[in-house]
Amino acid sequence: MTLLNAPTPTLAGAFGNAVALSCRECGTRFELGAAYACEECFGPLEVVYDVPRLTREHIESGPQSIWRYRDLLPVPADVAAHPGLHPGWTKLVKADNLARELGVKSLWVKDDSGNPTHSFKDRVVGVALSAARQLGFTTVGCASTGNLANAVAAAAARAGLRSVVFVPSNLEAGKTITTAVYGGTLVAVEGNYDDVNRLCSEVAGDQPWGFVNINLRPYYAEGSKTVGYEVAEQLGWHLPEQVVAPVASGSLLTKVDKGFTELGKAGLVEATPYKVFGAQATGCSPVAQAFRAGADIVKPVRPDTIAKSLAIGNPADGPYALDVVRRTGGAIADVSDDEVVEGIRLLARTEGIFAETAGGVTVAVAKKLLAEGLLDPDAETVLLNTGDGLKTLDAVAPVVGPTATIAPSYDAFQKAGLA
Amino acid sequence: MTLLNAPTPTLAGAFGNAVALSCRECGTRFELGAAYACEECFGPLEVVYDVPRLTREHIESGPQSIWRYRDLLPVPADVAAHPGLHPGWTKLVKADNLARELGVKSLWVKDDSGNPTHSFKDRVVGVALSAARQLGFTTVGCASTGNLANAVAAAAARAGLRSVVFVPSNLEAGKTITTAVYGGTLVAVEGNYDDVNRLCSEVAGDQPWGFVNINLRPYYAEGSKTVGYEVAEQLGWHLPEQVVAPVASGSLLTKVDKGFTELGKAGLVEATPYKVFGAQATGCSPVAQAFRAGADIVKPVRPDTIAKSLAIGNPADGPYALDVVRRTGGAIADVSDDEVVEGIRLLARTEGIFAETAGGVTVAVAKKLLAEGLLDPDAETVLLNTGDGLKTLDAVAPVVGPTATIAPSYDAFQKAGLA
Ligand SMILES: Cc1ncc(COP(=O)(O)O)c(C=O)c1O
Ligand SMILES: Cc1ncc(COP(=O)(O)O)c(C=O)c1O
Ligand SMILES: [Zn+2]
Ligand SMILES: [Zn+2]
Repeated sequence: MTLLNAPTPTLAGAFGNAVALSCRECGTRFELGAAYACEECFGPLEVVYDVPRLTREHIESGPQSIWRYRDLLPVPADVAAHPGLHPGWTKLVKADNLARELGVKSLWVKDDSGNPTHSFKDRVVGVALSAARQLGFTTVGCASTGNLANAVAAAAARAGLRSVVFVPSNLEAGKTITTAVYGGTLVAVEGNYDDVNRLCSEVAGDQPWGFVNINLRPYYAEGSKTVGYEVAEQLGWHLPEQVVAPVASGSLLTKVDKGFTELGKAGLVEATPYKVFGAQATGCSPVAQAFRAGADIVKPVRPDTIAKSLAIGNPADGPYALDVVRRTGGAIADVSDDEVVEGIRLLARTEGIFAETAGGVTVAVAKKLLAEGLLDPDAETVLLNTGDGLKTLDAVAPVVGPTATIAPSYDAFQKAGLA
Repeated sequence: MTLLNAPTPTLAGAFGNAVALSCRECGTRFELGAAYACEECFGPLEVVYDVPRLTREHIESGPQSIWRYRDLLPVPADVAAHPGLHPGWTKLVKADNLARELGVKSLWVKDDSGNPTHSFKDRVVGVALSAARQLGFTTVGCASTGNLANAVAAAAARAGLRSVVFVPSNLEAGKTITTAVYGGTLVAVEGNYDDVNRLCSEVAGDQPWGFVNINLRPYYAEGSKTVGYEVAEQLGWHLPEQVVAPVASGSLLTKVDKGFTELGKAGLVEATPYKVFGAQATGCSPVAQAFRAGADIVKPVRPDTIAKSLAIGNPADGPYALDVVRRTGGAIADVSDDEVVEGIRLLARTEGIFAETAGGVTVAVAKKLLAEGLLDPDAETVLLNTGDGLKTLDAVAPVVGPTATIAPSYDAFQKAGLA
């Protein structure tokens, strides 16, 4: 097999219980390494495990981070001892106020804005950087719509790795400054995410760098399973009946499903049925469009939406996301940018959680799916808030601000009619 | 006693093990209520407890939030069951990279950017809103330099309370938008924090509102003790030898000391000696100036610094902060705005933690105190990072940005010399 740019051979235990990479399309197996595409059919590779019997107690006694699930991830047993940001174990919030407004019986928000760089990307980066370390990479990189850039730059700084991060040059200041401040190399590319991604694939073929979402993608992607694991554990070790996930490349959605399935197989939860729903912004909704059209193929689009973190026009895992949604009986829908802003405000007003645009997409799509009767208001439902409103202030700046601006006197206060 | 604007009488157990309010100056005791100034001498009131025997195990089995310390706070036993943001239990990060750069042996960063609205203010608001609920207030407010505004607006939204928040009109967008988005009333006041605070004191005397840092201040302030509790518990139940805290009103610094002392008295840790250090920005350094001058009185200043969250020119707890620092053998120092920015970058580059200006102040002051020989490089040291860099992007925007901006081609990448 091709060990793309892997500077050192794999050590025993370097990937924990992971035993191989396997092609999602043809099932061919490959040795664990910095490979991501099947030599036979170019299909994407996925990590395969030989997991020993696990107990809830074992997991519960682990660290308060994604590393409590280390036995289910391609990481060494001592992963938590290495310098890292220790993401995960974010709050699962009982969203009673939002439930009331939406007319839902039992609603939870998994709030990943609580991660170290305030998005779920800290999870995938945690796993990818462990793989990078085990494979001997000293430089890590990524193509990013923003959150991944923050997460890679921050985690590399802590881990003492060099980072080279590529982003579209039109990103929000909240995402470029936040990446640059960690002191790595930040490359702004005059193009959209899909251009950035194409360029990074070329660079990955030429430089001895570990690109977390390219040549380390099989490991990276596994990190998103922890969202599913945590939701189930935090619900008291059961699966929710419905989950709504934002979709960019489609990786998070497919891995939440994988996480749920694995927990059932491992006997850690009862394998009860659940439905997975996807959320996109209309301005970049290739997967939602394919879902509506009943198509298996996702037709690339040119993104135009304020939900920049979801602006992937040619989503690598789009077809797999479609599979998951159809298999579980879910749906994928999209909402306008105005609805995204309303979704952000609704979540903030009801639950005190300020989400970035991706969270606004998820809340607004949940509302729409309820109106369309696709989401069951009587079923236990979890919405994934994957990012933080502080990174996308521009989205709400035009519609929120001070109620009044007054002179510093009691007289001015009284005249303003605020009492 | 005066029950300022308290709509309902106190219920049994409403304040847990708290038994009274007591004047810091003359010791006169008052009934628990919405009172904050002594009727005898106008001194500030503080909560007094009758704490039963507590064990480490009892605390460790509690929630992963400040409510694990509910027995040491003026809150009811069931406080965690009420709708709130459940702040606290943030990461204590072993800062080995920063330690190496600063030449310190054992260094930790208590990272309160992990709180729900990304500052330590979520802690004080958690306690204040519990008191507001017990006292029957349905509207809560505050005077704020920004972080408190975010925290009050968010927590009130979740708790179903009305909020009326007052801020200086020149605040960062990261703090006004983030407050307004939660849907409460936000009043921008044309003046500095001290003007805002004065106005709020007048409003509190006239409206039946619970101002968290005015008429609920005794409860509010207790929330900061949890920073001290968590540091000690996370160190494995011992006190650090040195702690560096940012100073605005001086409340946090004094309450970290109170927290350490209480743990020793309760036998939860050994009462080993520790030194408390304070950090201010030179542009608003009334407490540091008083410390240097050997004065007991803090002379008010007109703030002019990028560290807006610390821009309190007339700090209510300034004299008590001086007391703590002098009693423990610490110091209070100040740094220039340029040093603040360098402090932010140093922490980001070494530990992957992006702090707001207040965190930059703390890191830069630690560096300065080490250079001056006031902070012992061989003693176990904890720096308090109390806020989040995403709220003060303007501070670093002039000095960080993309390394290069390139066309989306491999050729452009190669020419940029980034490999
Ligand atoms: C905040 C946020 N949510 C969701 C996603 C979707 O992730 P995926 O590419 O796994 O579909 C992203 C991707 O960048 C994101 O930044
Ligand atoms: C981020 C941050 N750190 C520290 C402080 C200082 O708090 P205190 O007023 O308790 O001294 C504040 C106060 O607003 C703050 O916002
Ligand atoms: Zn294949
Ligand atoms: Zn008194």
